[in-house]
Amino acid sequence: MAHGAEAEFMRRAIALAIENVRAGVGGPFAAVIVRDGRIVAEAANSVTSTCDPTAHGEVNAIRAACRALGTFSLAGCVIYSSCEPCPMCLAAIYWARLDALYFGASQHDAAKAGFDDARLYEEVGMPIAARSLPTAQLLGEEEWASFGAWLSTPARVDY
Amino acid sequence: MAHGAEAEFMRRAIALAIENVRAGVGGPFAAVIVRDGRIVAEAANSVTSTCDPTAHGEVNAIRAACRALGTFSLAGCVIYSSCEPCPMCLAAIYWARLDALYFGASQHDAAKAGFDDARLYEEVGMPIAARSLPTAQLLGEEEWASFGAWLSTPARVDY
Repeated sequence: MAHGAEAEFMRRAIALAIENVRAGVGGPFAAVIVRDGRIVAEAANSVTSTCDPTAHGEVNAIRAACRALGTFSLAGCVIYSSCEPCPMCLAAIYWARLDALYFGASQHDAAKAGFDDARLYEEVGMPIAARSLPTAQLLGEEEWASFGAWLSTPARVDY
Repeated sequence: MAHGAEAEFMRRAIALAIENVRAGVGGPFAAVIVRDGRIVAEAANSVTSTCDPTAHGEVNAIRAACRALGTFSLAGCVIYSSCEPCPMCLAAIYWARLDALYFGASQHDAAKAGFDDARLYEEVGMPIAARSLPTAQLLGEEEWASFGAWLSTPARVDY
């Protein structure tokens, strides 16, 4: 059972999700990013109001936390999401190097509200040829030139 | 084998990826979004220069295309990515409802250049308890309130 600070941060994420629906900004999802017991950034889903299909609560919160801290790494921070992340947001959490994830509602709850992320997890887990998204590889050998440029740039910023 | 317009759009994505490395903006990745044979938007990776771990080429191109078209749905458009998308970008392509994906380099090529997306695909495909990311569910039942608010809002914009 949740208690203390963890429950407080999760309740904040849930309250933001509810506010977001009432304000008509986007879907019923929000996230809070915390470092050392303090909120660094918080954000709700704004897909429809900002015309950005990537503007899920978690992605918006990661972007806001990185802006607030001036870094592309959130190592040392944790994320509280009102709902279990979709594959896009889960992978974004890895890219952001967050230390841990707490979520409220499950994928199954979200599905009951019309958000079928389970199907998206299946698609992402399939081999390319089995996915519903028509996909083809083109000019793979020519693309190596960009990796060659990368590897031969000693001043590159790895991430 | 690629030919004609498809090869042209992919070569544009590859050229943007190479330019991006030379300019020091970010990683060796870029994407072009096309509708009816014309480029709607194009973008390269800007993770390090914009302090945004979600600013991969595909995500940046999706955001730019949505801004250009004033919509959160890119149905009717296709994406040319210089490299096989990571799970974040692949899921973003589904959320954006793009019609098709063309990619240049494979995951295996990217791994040779130090970008190990295969590991991230494995993590996203695992059950929660098996992932390297510490994860816990909190207050799932309280979060239902935000879905309740969503379902009881007739004026909501579904996406």
